[in-house]
Amino acid sequence: MKIKTTEINVKKPDKDVDFFDITGNVSDAVAAADVKEGVANVFSPGSTASVTTIEYEPNLLIDFRRVLEKLVPSDIRYEHEKAWGERNGQSHMRTSIFGPGVVIPIHEGKLMTGQWQQIVVMDFDVIQRNRRIVIQVIGE
Amino acid sequence: MKIKTTEINVKKPDKDVDFFDITGNVSDAVAAADVKEGVANVFSPGSTASVTTIEYEPNLLIDFRRVLEKLVPSDIRYEHEKAWGERNGQSHMRTSIFGPGVVIPIHEGKLMTGQWQQIVVMDFDVIQRNRRIVIQVIGE
Amino acid sequence: MKIKTTEINVKKPDKDVDFFDITGNVSDAVAAADVKEGVANVFSPGSTASVTTIEYEPNLLIDFRRVLEKLVPSDIRYEHEKAWGERNGQSHMRTSIFGPGVVIPIHEGKLMTGQWQQIVVMDFDVIQRNRRIVIQVIGE
Repeated sequence: MKIKTTEINVKKPDKDVDFFDITGNVSDAVAAADVKEGVANVFSPGSTASVTTIEYEPNLLIDFRRVLEKLVPSDIRYEHEKAWGERNGQSHMRTSIFGPGVVIPIHEGKLMTGQWQQIVVMDFDVIQRNRRIVIQVIGE
Repeated sequence: MKIKTTEINVKKPDKDVDFFDITGNVSDAVAAADVKEGVANVFSPGSTASVTTIEYEPNLLIDFRRVLEKLVPSDIRYEHEKAWGERNGQSHMRTSIFGPGVVIPIHEGKLMTGQWQQIVVMDFDVIQRNRRIVIQVIGE
Repeated sequence: MKIKTTEINVKKPDKDVDFFDITGNVSDAVAAADVKEGVANVFSPGSTASVTTIEYEPNLLIDFRRVLEKLVPSDIRYEHEKAWGERNGQSHMRTSIFGPGVVIPIHEGKLMTGQWQQIVVMDFDVIQRNRRIVIQVIGE
């Protein structure tokens, strides 16, 4: 049983919500670990970015930004602001709705994601970030 | 350490959101793998169906359909439609809210789900689908 | 490969949504299992409480309660009530939005959670509960 833990960085250039397709990074980690059967546990160590799967399609990202504003708006004042002075209450709540990580099955050396399913970091924070993402490959 | 990866199919008969109780299938996979301690990683390889746990109760499924319409309505036009001509933008966004998979603990040969907690595929797509679901049993 | 499965209880004192920081319990389980590389699979065996990660900050918990009321209100009647007479339809739906569990990477004997990221049980039920939470530590 192998357990290989690596990290990548995703760099958020502006203040808006950002989406990063990291499917290639996870595939590379599976290949580097030489795991044929097992899982890839992809995890965001933080409370303002999620890791999930979506179809990474530019128009759909526009839809996501709109739906996020509707579900947990960024233009209202949250109590969280009083704790740290940061206006990112919405970032925290969106993160736990989408979840901190995903566990992708690996079979015959390949991620079992669908053809239109990418592994994506959603960075919900309101400032520029250089964020660590954990990729853990476990198996044989 | 055993790692047994199997697949089942769930067949969506109509255009509406569908819910499939696959608890029995996952239990069967655990028994077939003869794993006493470990996990069942149940995963949807696609971007328009989730795997999660709910109480699979017919009235609650009605409530879920209503709440889904409120959270991410199906009767508005999404930008995603312009990419492929498919009117399933809402299916994609619902999927990442509920997540692509669950990792259920196995102890003494049994899934550690609660009595009123079923493992469920939520198919959010708008067309008939014959969908693959991955069941991976890992343990000893 | 070690697989150690333990349980803790979280006791909800009143009818409101409750949040429990169980990061210390999960850290203790990792230390007790003496696992250096692997995962902690933290899971709620039930359909009215989630396990996820958030910044456990009192003001943010106020924000969460408000957003929960907006997303899936507690003051409307759900069909689920007709099945069991329980007014917790909203508890069920909130649970699957936030998910039943999380899989936290362990590296060099430590949980790879961020500094402001706690492992939290969100109990959405409407009655007092003494709830079991599963902590499974898997690795080497």
